[in-house]
Amino acid sequence: MKTAITELFNIEHPIIQGGMHYVGFAELAGAVSNAGGLGIITGLTQRTPELLAKEIARCHDLTDKPFGVNLTFLPSFSAPPYPEYIAAIREGGIKIVETAGRSPEQYMPALKAAGIKVIHKCTSVRHSLKAEQIGCDAVSVDGFECGGHPGEDDMPNMILLPRAAEELKIPFVASGGMADARSLVAALAMGAAGMNMGTRFMATKEAPVHDNVKNALVAASELDTRLVMRAIRNTERVLKNAGVDRLLDMVVGLIHDIPTVKELIDRIMADAERLIRNRLTGLLGAESRASLEVA
Amino acid sequence: MKTAITELFNIEHPIIQGGMHYVGFAELAGAVSNAGGLGIITGLTQRTPELLAKEIARCHDLTDKPFGVNLTFLPSFSAPPYPEYIAAIREGGIKIVETAGRSPEQYMPALKAAGIKVIHKCTSVRHSLKAEQIGCDAVSVDGFECGGHPGEDDMPNMILLPRAAEELKIPFVASGGMADARSLVAALAMGAAGMNMGTRFMATKEAPVHDNVKNALVAASELDTRLVMRAIRNTERVLKNAGVDRLLDMVVGLIHDIPTVKELIDRIMADAERLIRNRLTGLLGAESRASLEVA
Repeated sequence: MKTAITELFNIEHPIIQGGMHYVGFAELAGAVSNAGGLGIITGLTQRTPELLAKEIARCHDLTDKPFGVNLTFLPSFSAPPYPEYIAAIREGGIKIVETAGRSPEQYMPALKAAGIKVIHKCTSVRHSLKAEQIGCDAVSVDGFECGGHPGEDDMPNMILLPRAAEELKIPFVASGGMADARSLVAALAMGAAGMNMGTRFMATKEAPVHDNVKNALVAASELDTRLVMRAIRNTERVLKNAGVDRLLDMVVGLIHDIPTVKELIDRIMADAERLIRNRLTGLLGAESRASLEVA
Repeated sequence: MKTAITELFNIEHPIIQGGMHYVGFAELAGAVSNAGGLGIITGLTQRTPELLAKEIARCHDLTDKPFGVNLTFLPSFSAPPYPEYIAAIREGGIKIVETAGRSPEQYMPALKAAGIKVIHKCTSVRHSLKAEQIGCDAVSVDGFECGGHPGEDDMPNMILLPRAAEELKIPFVASGGMADARSLVAALAMGAAGMNMGTRFMATKEAPVHDNVKNALVAASELDTRLVMRAIRNTERVLKNAGVDRLLDMVVGLIHDIPTVKELIDRIMADAERLIRNRLTGLLGAESRASLEVA
């Protein structure tokens, strides 16, 4: 499948692995990129810029395909040494950075000077437009799926994605609650050029989380918040805030197995094609199908 | 477009007008049915069963096509005389009833004995399965789009629709936040067989609400809650609970004009076909498109 996102990042499939604290290590990022998606190393999971440089080098050993680094800009007094992290990213030959948290505006000159493409995670149309204005190449539109996240603008993807499509000139991917081909095709229908998938990748063979966590993700229904969160908190502490907790709460309802990353991505793309050409095209009347065939 | 819902209700397009208090009069229901959707008269907006009988007769004068009646089962001491309302529905020749609120279980025998098809509005997979079990013909799955509705199960459509598709045998339509072709195709991709659209129909020429309300719906962005709600409360009092308020809040961002009902429905269906056969099919690789053409 070709979209503005596969073209922008030179990847085969429009699936970006979301940056996940304590999960986005080289093993997972490499596996996602090898499978044709865009793997993402979580920058701040590496405690120092030197450790990030080593993690990037490890990922280069695992894949020849493009992968990116997530850099989250925190609103904290003792901010991490971002310029040094960016230096590690640049010197590691990384050409794609996913920024999150505060606006990346201050660091855009350094990133763009290194030829790095920037995709910024936003939870509103207003922030997405701001990201476009400061030179981001794409945005990851995070429709917080009823996550209880503070902030007035949080909107579910069913509203946020069409609104983003109306306003943005740069391409965007849908983020939040994405789990399978149905999520992907729905996001594409609403104007996104791909999806950012996080939690679903935790339930893959390659994800560096304990089997107990993976099994809890599979066993849980969308209503089993406490069970899942207890299992995850006690083992990996991958999730930090109430908003993400609530999101995880729901997407687990759509996770039913622990495939390899490649199996997962191949399945999503095959299912997405079937969804489009069998189910959706099949719903069109005979007249519409005929006009499609001659098109 | 043919789906399980167009077949079930013998309608041309898989678009159901949501029951709306003080909006779902014969004029709007008739216009929706004439345009090929399924118009719905809001039963309890008619203060007595006799008035409902008259409203049904008025709608029969406006359209020869199928239309339905919404019946909301309230948790109140002084419940409306539901058996009499059902008698008015039956004697009015109505063959489709949308139930909402409490479970319609108690009234299913009377409805089914009259050959009436029942579509029940549910906000969870669990309630949808219960509706299926008691004999409902379809459900309207209401993914409360971050509406702040009380109740543990409320989930956004991006999660709720795929989950419903996994569990239900009867067809379902997506409800909540539906506004245009993008909503429809996304819902179809996630397994729904159509959509239930409410607020969007308020901004049509035929909707029996004050022009100030329609203009407020068009002017407002998805962030202008208070403006819209003030305009609506002061003129029509169409919306009663905080949950619906919050939903309206968001869907207004996708309402940009006041077409006739027929213009709106024709546009949605034409856009939906284009979305499927141009945008979505166009994203597939040449190889996939070739296999589609020979299919």
